[in-house]
Parts: sequence; C-alpha cells; structure tokens
Amino acid sequence: MMFHGVVPPLCTPLTDDGEVDTASLERLTAFQLDAGVHGLFVLGSTGEVAQLTDTARDTALRTVVATAAGQVPVLAGVIDTGTSRVIEHARHARALGADAVVATAPFYVGVGEAEIRAHFERLHAALDLPVVAYDIPSNVHSKLPPALLGDLAHAKVIAAVKDSSGDLESFQRLLDATAGSGAGCLTGSETLADLALARGADGIVPGLGNIDPHGYVRLHRAAHTGDFTTARAEQRRLTALYGITEIPDRSRIGRVSAALGAFKSALAGRGLIACARTAPPLLPLTLAESRAIAAHLETAGLGRVS
Amino acid sequence: MMFHGVVPPLCTPLTDDGEVDTASLERLTAFQLDAGVHGLFVLGSTGEVAQLTDTARDTALRTVVATAAGQVPVLAGVIDTGTSRVIEHARHARALGADAVVATAPFYVGVGEAEIRAHFERLHAALDLPVVAYDIPSNVHSKLPPALLGDLAHAKVIAAVKDSSGDLESFQRLLDATAGSGAGCLTGSETLADLALARGADGIVPGLGNIDPHGYVRLHRAAHTGDFTTARAEQRRLTALYGITEIPDRSRIGRVSAALGAFKSALAGRGLIACARTAPPLLPLTLAESRAIAAHLETAGLGRVS
Amino acid sequence: MMFHGVVPPLCTPLTDDGEVDTASLERLTAFQLDAGVHGLFVLGSTGEVAQLTDTARDTALRTVVATAAGQVPVLAGVIDTGTSRVIEHARHARALGADAVVATAPFYVGVGEAEIRAHFERLHAALDLPVVAYDIPSNVHSKLPPALLGDLAHAKVIAAVKDSSGDLESFQRLLDATAGSGAGCLTGSETLADLALARGADGIVPGLGNIDPHGYVRLHRAAHTGDFTTARAEQRRLTALYGITEIPDRSRIGRVSAALGAFKSALAGRGLIACARTAPPLLPLTLAESRAIAAHLETAGLGRVS
Amino acid sequence: MMFHGVVPPLCTPLTDDGEVDTASLERLTAFQLDAGVHGLFVLGSTGEVAQLTDTARDTALRTVVATAAGQVPVLAGVIDTGTSRVIEHARHARALGADAVVATAPFYVGVGEAEIRAHFERLHAALDLPVVAYDIPSNVHSKLPPALLGDLAHAKVIAAVKDSSGDLESFQRLLDATAGSGAGCLTGSETLADLALARGADGIVPGLGNIDPHGYVRLHRAAHTGDFTTARAEQRRLTALYGITEIPDRSRIGRVSAALGAFKSALAGRGLIACARTAPPLLPLTLAESRAIAAHLETAGLGRVS
Repeated sequence: MMFHGVVPPLCTPLTDDGEVDTASLERLTAFQLDAGVHGLFVLGSTGEVAQLTDTARDTALRTVVATAAGQVPVLAGVIDTGTSRVIEHARHARALGADAVVATAPFYVGVGEAEIRAHFERLHAALDLPVVAYDIPSNVHSKLPPALLGDLAHAKVIAAVKDSSGDLESFQRLLDATAGSGAGCLTGSETLADLALARGADGIVPGLGNIDPHGYVRLHRAAHTGDFTTARAEQRRLTALYGITEIPDRSRIGRVSAALGAFKSALAGRGLIACARTAPPLLPLTLAESRAIAAHLETAGLGRVS
Repeated sequence: MMFHGVVPPLCTPLTDDGEVDTASLERLTAFQLDAGVHGLFVLGSTGEVAQLTDTARDTALRTVVATAAGQVPVLAGVIDTGTSRVIEHARHARALGADAVVATAPFYVGVGEAEIRAHFERLHAALDLPVVAYDIPSNVHSKLPPALLGDLAHAKVIAAVKDSSGDLESFQRLLDATAGSGAGCLTGSETLADLALARGADGIVPGLGNIDPHGYVRLHRAAHTGDFTTARAEQRRLTALYGITEIPDRSRIGRVSAALGAFKSALAGRGLIACARTAPPLLPLTLAESRAIAAHLETAGLGRVS
Repeated sequence: MMFHGVVPPLCTPLTDDGEVDTASLERLTAFQLDAGVHGLFVLGSTGEVAQLTDTARDTALRTVVATAAGQVPVLAGVIDTGTSRVIEHARHARALGADAVVATAPFYVGVGEAEIRAHFERLHAALDLPVVAYDIPSNVHSKLPPALLGDLAHAKVIAAVKDSSGDLESFQRLLDATAGSGAGCLTGSETLADLALARGADGIVPGLGNIDPHGYVRLHRAAHTGDFTTARAEQRRLTALYGITEIPDRSRIGRVSAALGAFKSALAGRGLIACARTAPPLLPLTLAESRAIAAHLETAGLGRVS
Repeated sequence: MMFHGVVPPLCTPLTDDGEVDTASLERLTAFQLDAGVHGLFVLGSTGEVAQLTDTARDTALRTVVATAAGQVPVLAGVIDTGTSRVIEHARHARALGADAVVATAPFYVGVGEAEIRAHFERLHAALDLPVVAYDIPSNVHSKLPPALLGDLAHAKVIAAVKDSSGDLESFQRLLDATAGSGAGCLTGSETLADLALARGADGIVPGLGNIDPHGYVRLHRAAHTGDFTTARAEQRRLTALYGITEIPDRSRIGRVSAALGAFKSALAGRGLIACARTAPPLLPLTLAESRAIAAHLETAGLGRVS
C-alpha cells in the first residue's frame, strides 16, 4: 500500500540566489530515507509550492525522484487554481517520475460541491496515476466534505486523502466515510499525530518531520503496534519541538512564513540544508529569531547531523 | 492617462472542445471598442484566468492585443499564488504586448502586510510596465489596506488599483490615500459604478460591461460631466440587467460560476460569442436557466447584435 | 412618517462610578433636539446596550423619553440573544414610552433563515409598537437577507430597517425589496450617508451624529432637496471628522471600543458629557489618545458647546 | 475537586406552552445522578440559555439545585454580552445555589484581548464563587487564547475552562498553559471525549450525555483507569449515536437547532421529558425527522427508561 506510514512534506531548500539548492535537497531527502520514512511528499505547502516557478518545481521533483530511486513512493503536489492547470501539472509530474499526485479543490474562485466533485473526476480521468485529495481549509478557504471524499474514494477517483484541517472530528468522519474503499487517510498534523493514528489514520505527513523524522518514525511504529503510551510520549516531545514555530514575530510575517522560516532555520542549524531562506514574498527570520530556534534545538538535543 | 473610463474585464469565449474561441473573442473585443470603451482587461477573474492553462491565457491575450491594435490600452491579469510566478506571467504578458499588468496579493499561503508590500515592490522592480494592484477579498481572502496602497502609489510602485471589494467606505479611503500620487482608482462593481464615480473613481471595470458596454459608457460619460441624474438612471437600468446573475440555482454551483455562466449565456444570446460554456470545473447553466436569461435580455431590449 | 431624517444612536454617558449620568444624557439629548434631528435611537450598539445592565438601560431610556417629551420619536434598542428575551425587553421599552423598538436577528446561537423570520413575526405579534429590523453583521455574525426583509416589510411585520452592514449594494437590494411597503430604510453609515440618501434612504443613524448633529442635519437637508453637491461637501467634512475613531491604538482595544472611546472623548471635549468612560469591559482611551482627539476636534472647528 | 468527570450540559425541557417543565427537568436530573455523573451544567448553550427569559433561567437553575441536593456540584451558565450583565447573572446564580458559574468572553461587541482579561478579572472580583471560562468560538466568534487562559488560571481568576472549540491542538495548549495551576480542563466534545481524556482532560461536558449518561460515565471511568481500548469502543458507540444530530434537514433550520431538536426528540423518545419542543425562534423537527431519530435510538438499543 502506497499511502501509509510517515510521509514528510519536504521543504525545498534554496540558495542565496533563490534557486533550488539541489545538493541540500539531496541531503535532506537522504536523511529522511535513512530515518526510515515510508514516502516523500514534494511540492506541498511546506515545500513552498505556491511560491516556486514551474522550473523550480521541476527541479525539486526531479531531485527527490532521483534521490529516492524507488525506495519509497514520491508524491507530488499539483496545487493550482483550476482543473486544466492541475491536470497539466499532474501529467508533468507523472513524466518526471512521481508515483502519485496531491491536489486541492479549486481555489481563488470558490466553487460548489458538484464542481469540486467534477474537478477530481476530471483529474482522475486525465491521469494514469493515483490522486490524493488534499484538504487544507486554511489555504483553500473551503473544506472538503467527508461524505464527498467517501464517494470519491469508493468510486476509485481518489486513492487517498491528506487532511490538514486540524479537525479530528471531521477526520473521524472521513475514516468512517472511506472505510472499505481502500483509500488511505493521512493527517497533516504535527501535534495530533498520535491521536489520528489511534483513530485509524494510515499515515502522517508532518512538516516538522523534516527536522526530526526519526521521532515521527518512532511515533508511528509505536502506534502501529498498539503501544500508545510510547506514541504519546514521543508526541509530547515532538509537540514541544514544534514550539519553534511560535518563535517568529507574527506582527511582521504571516503564520505560514513563521512556520516555514522556523523549519528552514532548524534544518540549516542541523546542517541539513545550506541556507535558511524562503521564497518571495515570504520574509526571512531575524537573527534573534534564528538564534532562539538554535537554542530550542539544542535544548531538544537535536544537534548537527554528521 | 491609461487607467480611466470604462475598462471591461473581458470574458474568454471557449469552443465546445474547451479551446479559446478566438473568432468569438475578436468579435467581443471589436464590439467593446465600437461601444467606446477606454481600455480592455484580459485574464481577470471574469476572464476565467484561474481556470485557463498558460497556453489558453496566451491565446486570449494575443487575440485581444491584436484586435485592439493600440486603440486602447490592454491590461493583462497575472493572477497567481506567489511572487516569482506572478513575475513570470507579467514578463510574458509584456512580451505579448500588454500595456499593464494586474496582480493580486499572494494567496493560498496567507502572508503578512510587509510581505504583501514586498510582493508588489519585487513585481515592480522586475518589470518595465505599470502594475495595477487588484483588491478582490472574495477570492484572495485578504483585503489590501488602503494605507498600504497609498504608500505604494506615492512610491510609484503601483500605477493604479482595481477595487473589487464592493466596499465603498474602503474605496473612499483608497481615494484619499492615493490622492496626488497620480495612481488611478478603478472600481470593479457593476451596481455601484455611479456612486464610485461620484466619489472620484477614475474608471470602472464591470463584468456586466461585456454584455452592455454602451450602457456603462453612457453612465461613465454622464458621471464624468457631472450629470449624476443621468448616471443614476443608467445605473438603475444596468442593476436590473445584473439580475441575470441571480437566475442560476446556487445550490448547484458557486457564486462565480453563476455570474460567469449568466454572462456567457447572455453573450451567446446576443450573438457575440458562439458558445456559452465555461472552463472546468465550472458547471454550465441548465437549459431552463439559459432561457430565463434570454427572456431577461429580451425584456431589457438587448437583442442580437447585427 | 416615523422613520426618516437624522436619528442619532445616542451614546450613554456614565459617571466615574459607572452609573448612567442622567444629567449628561439630558444635555446630550437636548443638544440633538436643538440641532434639529428627526428622531432618537437609544440603546443601540453605540449606546453600549450590550454592556449595560437592565437597570442602566431603563435609566437611559426613561431619561431620553422624558427629555424628548414627544418632540421626536424615540426608538429603543432591544438587543438580546433570543426571541423571548427580546419580547420582554420590547414590552418593557413600550411601557417606558418608546415609540418603536429596534431588534437584531437572534445571535450567540446561529439560526436558519426560517427561524429569523419566525423571530420577527413573534416579536411583531407580541407587541403593539413598530419593529425596526437591525442588520449589523459585524456584531450578529449573519446578514439579514434583503429578500426576507422585503417580505417582512410587505407583511407589515417590520416598519423599518436599520442597515449597519456598510454594504451599499445590499442596501440597494433592500430599497428595491421594500419599495411600496411603506417601510423606512435607514443606514447606519457615518461615511456613506450622502450616497445612501442619493440611492433613496429614508434616513441616517450615524454614531458620529452625537458629536456633530448639525453636520448630519445639513447633509440630510441638502440631500433631501436634491442638492447632492452640498451633501457631498458636508459628507467629506464629516468623514474627516470620523478620523477620530482611527486614533486609538487597535493593538490594545477592539474596533468598537476604539470608536466608542473616541466618540465619548469628543463629547467630553465639547462639554456635552461630564466623563468619557465607557462600560466594562471596554477599556478607556489613554491620555495621549484623548489629547489627539481634542486636537482633531479643534482643527475641525468643533469647540465646546456653550 | 469540583471540575472533573462527566458534567452533562442539561437540556431545559419545556411544556407545550413554552414554560420550563420542572417535572421533566427533575426526572432528567435524577436520571443523570443515577447514572453517576460528577456534576451538572445548567443553562449552557445546550440548555438553551440564549433563548430563555431570566424567569425561565431561574426556574431551571432552582429545579436542578433542588434535585441535585448537594450530591454533585451544579454549574450555572451566565451567558451574556457584557461584563456587568454577566456579574448580575452570576450573583443571582450564587443566590440560587449554584456552586460555580460558567462565562464566555463578551460578545455582540467584539473586544480586544486585554478587554477579555478585564472581563474575567472583574467577574472574579465581584463574586465569591469559582468562575469557569467557556470557550465556544462558534457562538462567541472569538477564541479564548490558551496563553491568556493559562495566565488567568495561575492567577486564580478562573477555576476551570470548558473548551467547546472542537480543536484538540488548542486543547493541548490549554492543558500545557494551565498545568500546575489547579484549574480543571473540560472538553465539550461529544465525539473526541476519549482523546481529550487521553491527553489529560479533567472532565467532559457532552450534550449527548443527556440521552446516554451511562455511556459517557463508562467512557470516563475506562479512560480514568488508563483503559483506552474500552474508552475507544464506548466512544465509537456514542459517536454513532451522535448521528441523530445529522438527521434534521439543515436547509430549514440552523446547526444548533438541529442538534437541540434531535436531543430533545431523543429524550422524549426515551420518556425522560414530556415534550420535545425547543424555545423560539428554534423551529421544531418534523414528524419524519422525529421518527428517524426514534428508529436510530431503537437500533442503538436505547429504549424508554422505566
């Protein structure tokens, strides 16, 4: 089964000039594989897909596909505003070697539920690759209804769902609606991963997994074997680590900028990527913020890798 | 001055196969020019920019630039989620002959105010063409603050603002904040155009102008000469015509689908475009809805052109 | 006709001890009457109805009814969460001499449209007094649909609407929907009053009218006689005066606290009320903010009355 | 410790005439006590506090206090828009025998965080009774920040929090922020109760507990003793039962009306209350909806009590 276990949404490291830093991305990918992740999600929100040009997206996807070299499936985000655009991205991702594509509902123009259904049906029909429905209401400004996802799963239009809504009640409805369809249910939550797994999630897609994949792999393994006490303890540790996203000053930058800046600052601090910069218009962290993150990592015992 | 008068946001006619119908687009463009519009806005929300591929966008822009042939300025929408993507679209639009580009704040990832500022500054710096800031909170899910727009206008970063917020109080603040900067202030409202002009708007960008440009040209001329009684009467007539957007059943399709479907149905009814279909995932109107729109047009005395 | 002209939503002056300052309220009321207002609205949002106890509400209403002494109608806000509570307030207001009551849709518990309709029908049936529907989405978190208000107006369930949505497009729909019903349409906007009157509003309910009722009376008179140039000039002056609500620091207090604090500070500065304090939990302005407001008033030529 | 275990938010049964049905309320209260609940919450959102007059609220509170007769603590909702109003309700609830009061942030007028803090501080200072902060963003339209609640808990301003946000991530932050303060953390979720308890919740306040308190008592007991497998099974059963709230047609009535109507219909079906009506403006369920709920109960094996 392709959609299970720990599937980190990879950050896309950039050089000082703003190009994709392929050496850093290879290092980050290898680090994830070495930690035992079960899949890789490229070009998600955490991968700054919305800020990258098509060329940069290509480079990122090619690099991860080459580094993964078939060891684990590679899921590619195909995030765009309309159906035809998403289909183009999806066909291209397939050509570059992606094993599945991850698509949201249309956005910018808000559409009705029948139109969301048509969107996924057209994408599925146009593509010889599994489709993962990506539910991220904070970015798309609408929520994918569990009942609709259940229909699409049973009709084999979608092969999995990535739920980044943070809403466990709706996640439970999703599990119930998709039960028996064979579709995987993944949560995007960093801090409720143990609970989602306890409820029956097939896998987890935590942005924080970039920094500490070993922790999430341990958490998942414990939960998978029914040892929720261990999973809970690991979750508690990871939730404390997630506190790095609270460090950047939110009066200056947005919530996502703060989280992405913190992730990249921590990755640079661990020596996994060369440069912590994010893509425009996301503003970089201040020196003081980066130092606070470094101190947080040190307290957490997460030093330089290698 | 480039940003004044009536600047309709052109619909993008499609063939039954979903390709851009260039013959219809030429006819629609010529109809607008004949009516005396002062500019043309291609690839706006009304132009289904979010649903069109890059190829389709190119075709639409080339067609309008060629048909306009320099008679009026052509503004091109460069709507995308991040700064680098918008810059790419903008450079491309310039190469295809656009006279100005129209860009929103970044979306999908919500950013802070300093990041919105950086977005427009980078776009301006990368481009040898005037930039129009497009404020459309219903789609972008954030509002461009009038004070920020005033700053950007006085710094010559932006050359105009298209305000599709529907909020006249904020539009007044925009007028005050940009006063003396030389930047144009355009409203996207179909139904408050007379009031926006009375307050000092430089121009109007009404989607309904696709169907009845003569009406908006008359409205604008009257307001421009201080004859608000005539402007008001014309507005009243056009507001009644705008009732066609209320006809489609909103339990089936989204608000924008309803409006775009109604516009295209009316354009087809007037013989200006060959086919009323919209781009996926927007669903077409029903036959009953199309007939109700045809009846509405007949009542309004808007028959076939030619 | 009871619902027309300038109907200021009176502030409720408080003593240093937090009691209703009846002497100040009498002075403020007399000042309004002297300026030629056409009605008085007690216990609206501007009157801090949500922060006052029932006893304080009674005192405020009694004081205004006594001071008005039948010269103009007194409208009483009966703002509460549920139908039975609103009916109790309304019967009580009638007993104290109110000429009409002003009620919102139910809030706290969000209800469906049929339930909003039932709410107003029950209120009307329980009361021998005209009911004004109060549309204030920023506080109630739902918008009263113009079509519903039209139905209620034609059925004589409501006698007027006070629209504090700030949305002129919807106000136009309201005017169209209620046309011929005899119901009055009032706008709560301080800064779009001239435009609302140009569109056919029967009256205006501006919070800023507490401070400068003469200005709004002049604006209304000009608009009423079709002299929109004068109305526009007066509106421009009043909009500048409304800038006092921008002075308080919004990182410390809420938007309404800022506006109410500014109004009361200005009233105290003009000598109309003894003390600028607002009701808990609304926090007072700082000394610097109060001084900035005083300076603004001086620039505007609005000195002490008497 | 007063704030722990199962604390059902009691429905308020009404007669056909809309009066509080004290006999039914006594029966419902006795049923809860018999099931082994640890406390009773009167006049919450589920108790229709927003729809009841002060007189009806009094009757409900008196009835429950008398029936509970000191066996378990009685918490009284003091839900109102402003601080002074809440203080009045709280003093009154104390006089009637409540053991604690439950208060939201101010609503109708949105206030700043410093004003929310002042609100709870004033309430605490005015009252010789524990204060429970009630976080219910769907009704209040703002979220109580966990950090603020932590401050108030450590300062002994609040004695507990009832979290009805449905957001387990924020609930975890709340647990962390209040740790060591002695304040109780209760969840209002019907369907995530097991997970909240696994995370360390002190208690649960499930509306569905009205219908099946035995289930929630079993769930709590299992979780309390660390038997999360049993808790999970019980939760699964209760989540299925919660499906009764999905039966009413949401195009006709609001979300809360649907849930309250379903609860009361089920209570009437079990013979616990005489009449299923809700308070105006909440509309009653249809006969078909009531029958579907009865069928659902039967399938769930929840027959008439006695």
